[in-house]
Amino acid sequence: MSIAETGEFGLITRIVARLETGAASLLGPGDDAAVVAAPDRRVVASTDVLVEGRHFRRDWSSAADVGHRAAAANLADIAAMGAVPTALLVALCVPTDLPVEWAEELSGGLSTEAARVGAAVVGGDMSSSPTLTIAVTALGDLAGREPVLRSGAQPGDVVALAGRTGHAAAGYTVLSRGFRTPKLLVEAYRRPEVEYAAGPTAARLGATSMIDISDGLLQDLGHVAAASVVGIDIDRAAFEVPDQMRDAASALGVDPYVWLLAGGDDHALAATFPPGTQLPPGWRAVGSVHEGTGVTVDRRPWQGGTGWDHFR
Amino acid sequence: MSIAETGEFGLITRIVARLETGAASLLGPGDDAAVVAAPDRRVVASTDVLVEGRHFRRDWSSAADVGHRAAAANLADIAAMGAVPTALLVALCVPTDLPVEWAEELSGGLSTEAARVGAAVVGGDMSSSPTLTIAVTALGDLAGREPVLRSGAQPGDVVALAGRTGHAAAGYTVLSRGFRTPKLLVEAYRRPEVEYAAGPTAARLGATSMIDISDGLLQDLGHVAAASVVGIDIDRAAFEVPDQMRDAASALGVDPYVWLLAGGDDHALAATFPPGTQLPPGWRAVGSVHEGTGVTVDRRPWQGGTGWDHFR
Repeated sequence: MSIAETGEFGLITRIVARLETGAASLLGPGDDAAVVAAPDRRVVASTDVLVEGRHFRRDWSSAADVGHRAAAANLADIAAMGAVPTALLVALCVPTDLPVEWAEELSGGLSTEAARVGAAVVGGDMSSSPTLTIAVTALGDLAGREPVLRSGAQPGDVVALAGRTGHAAAGYTVLSRGFRTPKLLVEAYRRPEVEYAAGPTAARLGATSMIDISDGLLQDLGHVAAASVVGIDIDRAAFEVPDQMRDAASALGVDPYVWLLAGGDDHALAATFPPGTQLPPGWRAVGSVHEGTGVTVDRRPWQGGTGWDHFR
Repeated sequence: MSIAETGEFGLITRIVARLETGAASLLGPGDDAAVVAAPDRRVVASTDVLVEGRHFRRDWSSAADVGHRAAAANLADIAAMGAVPTALLVALCVPTDLPVEWAEELSGGLSTEAARVGAAVVGGDMSSSPTLTIAVTALGDLAGREPVLRSGAQPGDVVALAGRTGHAAAGYTVLSRGFRTPKLLVEAYRRPEVEYAAGPTAARLGATSMIDISDGLLQDLGHVAAASVVGIDIDRAAFEVPDQMRDAASALGVDPYVWLLAGGDDHALAATFPPGTQLPPGWRAVGSVHEGTGVTVDRRPWQGGTGWDHFR
């Protein structure tokens, strides 16, 4: 059955029936707006949009995969402020010939990914469009902490990482060359595994800056370096190339460090910590902050490309 | 200059430079997420999406007009809960050949409309897309009041309206027949004039239910009737046909009451009040609630069409 047959309200009813609720959902879907708890009198809010053909392909990812990824991209932004996600709102633009099941499974993926952190889909909007588009807004709770900004890195700080880099980019390359394996990489592209809890943990431990790695480690650390008016050096040896990535890189003729250092979409969190901080489990040191500008790798400019610009 | 030339980050810089700030903006654009004040430990949140060709046309509306309308559609949803809007987040999907000025003026319109109620654009995302799409999320503050839902209307209540109906629908019809006047109607379509303050006022006065009229009065009151398990009767005589609307209707061969009762996009607020409530300025009685189901006009079923389904 296509969406043209169910109509807007029929589809909304079917989607809402699939959604789980969350502790912060004071009023969920069905009214003009949702009401979400904001216990410390502030709410953290971020929006990310996924466009078919640009951020996903229906022949590469299932509807549930796209839902998981759309949610993860947003929830990671909330975690990167040191906050705990509470709610998602979803604007869904769909071609009228889209099967209803696709929209339902997308919503299931969004809801399931949100439930991992105790958040829920509380509202949304829907329209027909020639281009399948999913815009998600995530809300979150700072639990009384100050938000961890991009601008607080200090010379001498340690740069640390929670989560994987390069896996999603490698999976994307694999898929774009017509392969479906290795599964590790393809699955990483389809559904990022984000260390959500690492964000609040870093905030509690005194992280001086933090960012969600969505466009590539070097590019995103470039935002931290610029906002903090510091230089950042990455230690290439801190990045191990997993066997399956090495094999794929070799087969495809790619330098795996381009994936690891410049590949986006894994949504690892990068943070800076004062020197001597005992890093919590899940965080590992990958570089250091110094006086200066820009991002280097082993103290040299990086030549392998820096990441993703959605208009180039 | 096109967006392909400025690139994603160049365009974001230009847009952010145009934004005004708001009292609730604790942290505005530029980090992974924004931080917005939520003084009463709750936040009201709503999302609406506008798609080119479906919700607007660039030859009918300026970029600033589209920005005003996208903001108004969302801010009205917040007002319809009885809340005061605090912030907007904007996901913007644009063709790469879109002139940069268009995106800048759109953002200016969003920011200016938000500023009318003291709210501000605090964040967003941007992507290229073949289809120009604007998804806006609005946040708001209930100031300690309970949200006014669709489900609280009681038999005996008065149905009241704040703001215009039918003007935007008439403007749309005028434009779709190739005319550019009357200005009153065309301007109403381009930039709705929403009585934002009427929402919180109605909440303070004990409104039992409230809704933003976005799809047409009869259709949207149908949601109130269904959620409240009541019937609603609208008094046709409560709707005056303005001269310019009467002339346009006559010239175009349209029944103006179809615009007034079934036309959307003016974002009037409809609310129900207990019998005997002295309606505040800006609100006028247009009908009554009774035991039963559905929405009637002068106690009869309405035959003129009920409103807008985005998939039909």
